[in-house]
Amino acid sequence: MSSSLGVLFRISTFGESHGGGVGVVVDGCPPRIPLSVEEIQFELDRRRPGQSKITTQRKESDTVEILSGLNEEGLTLGTPIAMLVRNEDARSKDYGEMKEKYRPSHADFAYDEKYGIRAWQGGGRSSARETIGRVAAGAIAKKVLKLGWGVEVLGYVERVKDIEASIDPLLVQLEQVESNIVRCPDPEAAERMLDLIENVRKEGNSVGGVVGCVARGVPAGWGEPVFDKLEADLAKAVMSLPACKGFESGSGFAGTYLTGLEHNDAFRAAAAPQGQGTGDEGLVTNMPETQAHVFTTSNNSGGIQGGISNGMPVLIKAAFKPTATVMREQDTVNVQRENTTLAGRGRHDPCVLPRAVPMVEAMVALVLVDHALRQKAIL
Amino acid sequence: MSSSLGVLFRISTFGESHGGGVGVVVDGCPPRIPLSVEEIQFELDRRRPGQSKITTQRKESDTVEILSGLNEEGLTLGTPIAMLVRNEDARSKDYGEMKEKYRPSHADFAYDEKYGIRAWQGGGRSSARETIGRVAAGAIAKKVLKLGWGVEVLGYVERVKDIEASIDPLLVQLEQVESNIVRCPDPEAAERMLDLIENVRKEGNSVGGVVGCVARGVPAGWGEPVFDKLEADLAKAVMSLPACKGFESGSGFAGTYLTGLEHNDAFRAAAAPQGQGTGDEGLVTNMPETQAHVFTTSNNSGGIQGGISNGMPVLIKAAFKPTATVMREQDTVNVQRENTTLAGRGRHDPCVLPRAVPMVEAMVALVLVDHALRQKAIL
Amino acid sequence: MSSSLGVLFRISTFGESHGGGVGVVVDGCPPRIPLSVEEIQFELDRRRPGQSKITTQRKESDTVEILSGLNEEGLTLGTPIAMLVRNEDARSKDYGEMKEKYRPSHADFAYDEKYGIRAWQGGGRSSARETIGRVAAGAIAKKVLKLGWGVEVLGYVERVKDIEASIDPLLVQLEQVESNIVRCPDPEAAERMLDLIENVRKEGNSVGGVVGCVARGVPAGWGEPVFDKLEADLAKAVMSLPACKGFESGSGFAGTYLTGLEHNDAFRAAAAPQGQGTGDEGLVTNMPETQAHVFTTSNNSGGIQGGISNGMPVLIKAAFKPTATVMREQDTVNVQRENTTLAGRGRHDPCVLPRAVPMVEAMVALVLVDHALRQKAIL
Amino acid sequence: MSSSLGVLFRISTFGESHGGGVGVVVDGCPPRIPLSVEEIQFELDRRRPGQSKITTQRKESDTVEILSGLNEEGLTLGTPIAMLVRNEDARSKDYGEMKEKYRPSHADFAYDEKYGIRAWQGGGRSSARETIGRVAAGAIAKKVLKLGWGVEVLGYVERVKDIEASIDPLLVQLEQVESNIVRCPDPEAAERMLDLIENVRKEGNSVGGVVGCVARGVPAGWGEPVFDKLEADLAKAVMSLPACKGFESGSGFAGTYLTGLEHNDAFRAAAAPQGQGTGDEGLVTNMPETQAHVFTTSNNSGGIQGGISNGMPVLIKAAFKPTATVMREQDTVNVQRENTTLAGRGRHDPCVLPRAVPMVEAMVALVLVDHALRQKAIL
Repeated sequence: MSSSLGVLFRISTFGESHGGGVGVVVDGCPPRIPLSVEEIQFELDRRRPGQSKITTQRKESDTVEILSGLNEEGLTLGTPIAMLVRNEDARSKDYGEMKEKYRPSHADFAYDEKYGIRAWQGGGRSSARETIGRVAAGAIAKKVLKLGWGVEVLGYVERVKDIEASIDPLLVQLEQVESNIVRCPDPEAAERMLDLIENVRKEGNSVGGVVGCVARGVPAGWGEPVFDKLEADLAKAVMSLPACKGFESGSGFAGTYLTGLEHNDAFRAAAAPQGQGTGDEGLVTNMPETQAHVFTTSNNSGGIQGGISNGMPVLIKAAFKPTATVMREQDTVNVQRENTTLAGRGRHDPCVLPRAVPMVEAMVALVLVDHALRQKAIL
Repeated sequence: MSSSLGVLFRISTFGESHGGGVGVVVDGCPPRIPLSVEEIQFELDRRRPGQSKITTQRKESDTVEILSGLNEEGLTLGTPIAMLVRNEDARSKDYGEMKEKYRPSHADFAYDEKYGIRAWQGGGRSSARETIGRVAAGAIAKKVLKLGWGVEVLGYVERVKDIEASIDPLLVQLEQVESNIVRCPDPEAAERMLDLIENVRKEGNSVGGVVGCVARGVPAGWGEPVFDKLEADLAKAVMSLPACKGFESGSGFAGTYLTGLEHNDAFRAAAAPQGQGTGDEGLVTNMPETQAHVFTTSNNSGGIQGGISNGMPVLIKAAFKPTATVMREQDTVNVQRENTTLAGRGRHDPCVLPRAVPMVEAMVALVLVDHALRQKAIL
Repeated sequence: MSSSLGVLFRISTFGESHGGGVGVVVDGCPPRIPLSVEEIQFELDRRRPGQSKITTQRKESDTVEILSGLNEEGLTLGTPIAMLVRNEDARSKDYGEMKEKYRPSHADFAYDEKYGIRAWQGGGRSSARETIGRVAAGAIAKKVLKLGWGVEVLGYVERVKDIEASIDPLLVQLEQVESNIVRCPDPEAAERMLDLIENVRKEGNSVGGVVGCVARGVPAGWGEPVFDKLEADLAKAVMSLPACKGFESGSGFAGTYLTGLEHNDAFRAAAAPQGQGTGDEGLVTNMPETQAHVFTTSNNSGGIQGGISNGMPVLIKAAFKPTATVMREQDTVNVQRENTTLAGRGRHDPCVLPRAVPMVEAMVALVLVDHALRQKAIL
Repeated sequence: MSSSLGVLFRISTFGESHGGGVGVVVDGCPPRIPLSVEEIQFELDRRRPGQSKITTQRKESDTVEILSGLNEEGLTLGTPIAMLVRNEDARSKDYGEMKEKYRPSHADFAYDEKYGIRAWQGGGRSSARETIGRVAAGAIAKKVLKLGWGVEVLGYVERVKDIEASIDPLLVQLEQVESNIVRCPDPEAAERMLDLIENVRKEGNSVGGVVGCVARGVPAGWGEPVFDKLEADLAKAVMSLPACKGFESGSGFAGTYLTGLEHNDAFRAAAAPQGQGTGDEGLVTNMPETQAHVFTTSNNSGGIQGGISNGMPVLIKAAFKPTATVMREQDTVNVQRENTTLAGRGRHDPCVLPRAVPMVEAMVALVLVDHALRQKAIL
C-alpha cells in the first residue's frame, strides 16, 4: 500500500526506470469531468528529461496513454483512471558498475537492506522516473480543482544554492514560470541560476535549492485535524518526492525568529470585493453573498490555521538537496561490503529544481483535491 | 478517520480541552510487552502544563488510566490499549470572550468554517491538550522500540528565537535534556533561552524555535517507498503537531547551500566494533555477524536514503511558531464578521518548545514503530 | 488497525470482558447532530445481558459515558466521540479452568496461537462484550441516518433452529420486534422459539438461527464498486460479529434455486406517491419531484444492484451458530496440548439471537452511514 | 479507493469492458518471488470467456502483460506489480439498446443514480471483465501462499440450481475440478449440470448455484479481530464478486439447524504425523516439532475460530444468482423513466459458476496472503 496516496482521491503509482513502463491508477476522481490526453501530456512534458541543456539528456518522449476511466466523449466515469507511459532509451551499459557498487547518497544500499533485492539499472523504483505517475495524476487533480472550486496551483524555483529570487506568490503567473528553463519567475535571478547550474554541470558537480508553491482560491474548511491536517498531508506528499529534505508551511523556519505579536495574522472583515481575490484580500469563499468577507492582513499562517484552510492563499516551500549523482570519483562500498570508489556516469540533472516544479505542483494539487472531496462529505 | 495515524501500529486520539477527558486507543501494539502505568505517566508529566514557571500555570495532574489491552500481569495482549486522562480545572470564565471573537492565528475561525460549530472553550479539539493521547501512545511506542530493536528516541530544544544551542545528536542524553526546564542540553544556551522566555512572558508576548530529535539504533530497512517513505511519514506526524510550521530531515534547508560533492555521504565498510554504535560509526544492524559493517562518514542524509533507513542515526528538526496567544490587544473579527479587538487571557505558554520536546519524540517513535512492524511483514 | 471499521464514519472499539471497561471512538460523525446519552443507552439496554430469562444472567448495568465530541448543548462537534462502559461483576472463579483448557469452538486456542498470550477470563477480547462499542456507535449511526436521510434500520429474529417466523420486512415495526424477549415479530413463532430456547437451556445445550435486517428509505447511489460494494461491506461488518457464520443479501442462497427469468427484478416507473414509501413501491429518492419514480416489482436484489443501492429496501440475513458454551462435558485439549474434557460453567446465553438483533442493526447502520457520507463526496 | 483491497498485500484494479484495457496493480508482494507471465496467464485462461460451449462466446484472448515489479530474472522486487490485458472484440452494436434502457437486475440504473454517468457498452466497470485484474493478482497470491506457507487454495462448483455435487473438500484435486467444463469434481453431477445449463441456454434463460472453496495448509494464527476477522475479510472479498448474493464460513446456514453439542468441534492432541496434513487431522503448523499437534475432530468452524485460523482447512461457500442477462423480453424502464421492455442480446453465460471458480479462488487467496503478511508483523 506504500505506493498509494490519498483517501478519497487516491493514486497508486507503479513502474521502475527500466522495464515495461511507469504509470498510475487514479481512484476516486469525480464523474463527468472532461479530460483529454493533451492535458496530461502538457504536465508530463514539463517534467520530461531532455527539455533543455540543464536537464538530463536522457531522451524519452514520455507519451501517456489513458487506459480506463473515460467514456467515448472523454468524460470521467467515476471509475479508476489508469495511465501508462512506456519506457524507452534504456542504456543499460551506463549502469553496469551500479550492479556492484552502491552510489553514495542514493537509495541503492537501503533498497538492498530492505528487500534483499534491487533493480540496479538506473535506480529502479527509486528513480525520479517514478514521478511520471504522480505528475499525470496531478494533472487530473489540477483540472478538478480548477473546474470544481476555481483553485489554481502554481510552483516556481525560489532559490538555487544561494541565489534567491524575488517572487510575489499572490501575483506570479504560469507564463512567468515557464518563460525560462530554470522555472524561476524572476528573470534576473533565473539568469544567474542558469549560469551557476551550467558551471556546476561542467565541473561534474551538482546543486540544490528551494521550490515554492502557492494554491490560490482555496476556500476555508479544507484539512482534517488532528492527523490529516492540511499542512501535515502536504508535508508528507511533498517530502515523498525524491531528493526532498525539508518542508515549510507559511512562515516556516523563518517564522521562528519572530515574536507572537509580529507573527500573528490579524483578521479583518470587509463587505468589499465580490469573487475570489488573489491579492492581499485572499477572500474567504463558500459563504452567503450577503456576509462580510474575512481575510487576514498578513499570511504567516500560509493559508492554514489549526490544520484547516482559512481562505487565504496556501503557501508552502520544499528543500531539494543537490543531485546525488556527480561525475567525480567518490568513496563507497560494493555489494560485498568492501571499500571502493565510484564516479557517476550516464545522463543526469546537475540540478533537479526546474523539473521538480511540476512535481511539487502535482503533490500539492493531489492533497488539495483529496481534502476538497473529504470536506464535501462533511458539509 | 482523521484522528488516527499509522498502519500496523495505529493510534486514534479523542477529546477536547474541556469535557470528559482526552485519550487514545493504540491498535496493533505487539503482544507480550510488559507495560506499566508509570511508564506512560512519566512521559505525560514531561508534557504536562504547570511543570515550571515558563509553562502555562493551568493545573492539571493529567493522571492516566489504562482501560484495556493488558492482562493482570501487565503484559500487552495484542488487543487495543485504551488510555484516558480526565479533564480538570476548567475555568470557563477565562474563555467567555472566545465564544464571540476569533483569536488571531488560532484555529477558531477555520473550525467554524469547516464544521459550522466549534468548542470555543479553550480551543476544544485544537488545544494542545489533544497531544496527551499522542504522548501516551508514544510512550508505548518508545518501549516497543527499546525492547524490540534497542532503538532510542530523544528530542531537545535546539533554538529559541535566535538563541541557538550547540548539541551533538549522537551523544546527547536524556539526563542532559531534563537537566533544565527549557529542555535544552546546552546549559549555557538554556540559561539564555530561559531569560528570553521570561522576558517575553512579562511583556505578554511569545517566542518560537526549533526542536531537534534523534533516533539512535534504527536498523537499515525501515520506510516504505514511494509515498510512505520514512521522512515523509515523519514529516506528516511532526507537522500534525499544534504550532509546527516546518520540518527537516537530515541536512534539510541548510543542505541546499552545499554542492553534491559536499553533501553526499560516502559509504565505508568496517569489520570493526560489534554491537550497535551510537557514535560516528552508526553501525548498520540486522546482518550476519561475519559481514562487514557499513556506515557513512557524514550523515547529511539524516539516516534515511530513498525513504528507507540506512542504519545511521535518524535526524529530524521541527519549527514551532511563537505561541499565538499573547496578552496584548490585537485586531480580529467576531462571529458576526465585524471588526473588533481581542487580548489573550488565561494561562498560556509564552514558548511551547519545552513541552513540544516529548510531543516530537512521541511522533517520531510512533512512526518508527509502525515502520518496524511493516518491515517485519516484508522480511 | 483491525479494531477499526469504516472509511469516513470510522469506529475503533476497545476493551476486554474483564478489565477496566469496553468502549468505542467514533471518528467522522457529522457535526451539529443532537445526541443524548439516553439514545445510546437505549440500544445498549437492548444488547445487555440479564434482560430476560433466556439471556445470560450476568448482571451488568452497562451504563455508558460520553467522553468527548459533544458541546455543552449536546451537539456533535465533528470531532471523535469516545464512549466508555465500565466492567463490573467479574466472577473470575467461574473462569479458573479456562486458564488451563481451551473451550471447544471458542477463540481461546486460536488467540494463543496468534498472539502467544490470551486474556483467559471470560473470553477477553473475543467476548461478546466487545460488541458494546459497536452497538453504542451504531446508535449514533442510526440517528445520523434518520436525521440525514430518513433511513430506518430494523432487525428481527427470523429463525431459531428450525422454527421459522413469518415476517414482512417492508412493514415490520420496532414495537413488534420488542414485544417479546425473543425479538421475533411473529408472536406465534416467538412463543415456540421461547419454548425451544428454554428447553435447550435446561438441557445445558444451545441453539442458533437467523437474524434478518431491513433498511428502509435508503436512496439510490450508496455503495462503492468494485470492492466496497454495499453488500460486500455489509457482509464484512455482519460476519465480524461473534458467532456469525453466514450472510445473505436479497435472495441469497435461496435465489440460486431460481432461473434468471424468475429471479430478475423488473423496473417500473410511476408518477405516483410522493415521499418515501416503505411498501412495495420502495420508491427511489434524491431525484427532482417532477421525475417519475422508479421501483422494482420484486426485490430479489435486496435493494442492491452492482454493489450500489437502487432505492428499494435493503435486505440482509445473518446466520448465527448455536452458542459454543454448553453445560455439558466435551472433549478438548489443555495448554500443554494434552487431551482432556471441559464442561461450561458460569452464565451464558443458550441462544444469542435475541441479543444479536441490535448488534446486526448496528453493523448495518454503520456501513450505511459510511457509504452515505462517501456518496456525498461524489455527488 | 473503492477499487483497492487488502492492507499489506493490496490490489487496485482498473478498466471497463470496453476501452483500452483492464488490469491491476499489486502493491506489497514480497520480494524475491519467482514469477512468470505463464503462471498469471494460466489462471486468466480459466476465467476467459469462450472456453467452452457453456460460457459466453465473446472471443478475447485476454493476454496479460506484466508492466513492472520484476527484475530481468523474473524475481519480484517488492515494488508494485502492474499487469495489463488489452480489450478486443468490442461489438458495440450489440449494446445500442443499452444506452437507452436499464437492464433488469443489472447495475445500469444504480450506476446512473450514483455517478450521473455510465459506460453503457457491455456494463463498463460492472462487467465481469473487471475480474481479470482480480484473477491475475490472485495468481500471484496463490504463488506466494504456496512458496511461503505451502498453502493450496482450490475452488469447485458445488451446486447448479438444484443439482448438488458430492465433494470431499479435504481430498479434491485441481485435476478433478478441471476435468470438465462445469468445474465440478463430481463427474456424475457435472454431467447433469451440463445438461441443465445447455437447456436453459437454449431457452434463453439462466441459472445460478454455489461455488465452494477450500484452503489447505493454512497455519493457525491468521485473521485479525475484531473487524478484520478472517471470515469477515473473506466474506467481503467474495461478496464483492459480480452476481454473488451469499457467503458461508464453515457450517454456514446449515449449522444453525444443529444444537451446540452437535455443532462444537472437539479439540484433540496427537503426537502423530509430521508435516502438514490435508486429511482429517488438518494439523496445526508453526509450532515446535516436539509439541503435540492439535486438531479438531469435526470442522464446523471451517478452520476459523474467533476470526482466526485454527490450523484446520479453511472452508467457505458462495452463492451466485442466475445470470441477469436472459434472451427474453422483460419489463424495464428507459433513461427517461418510462416503462418499456428489453430482451438480452449479445453473448452471455447462461451460468456464471464455471468461470466463477477461479474468481473465488483468487479472492480467497488474496485475503489469505494479506493476513499471512499481517501475522508476520505480529509474531
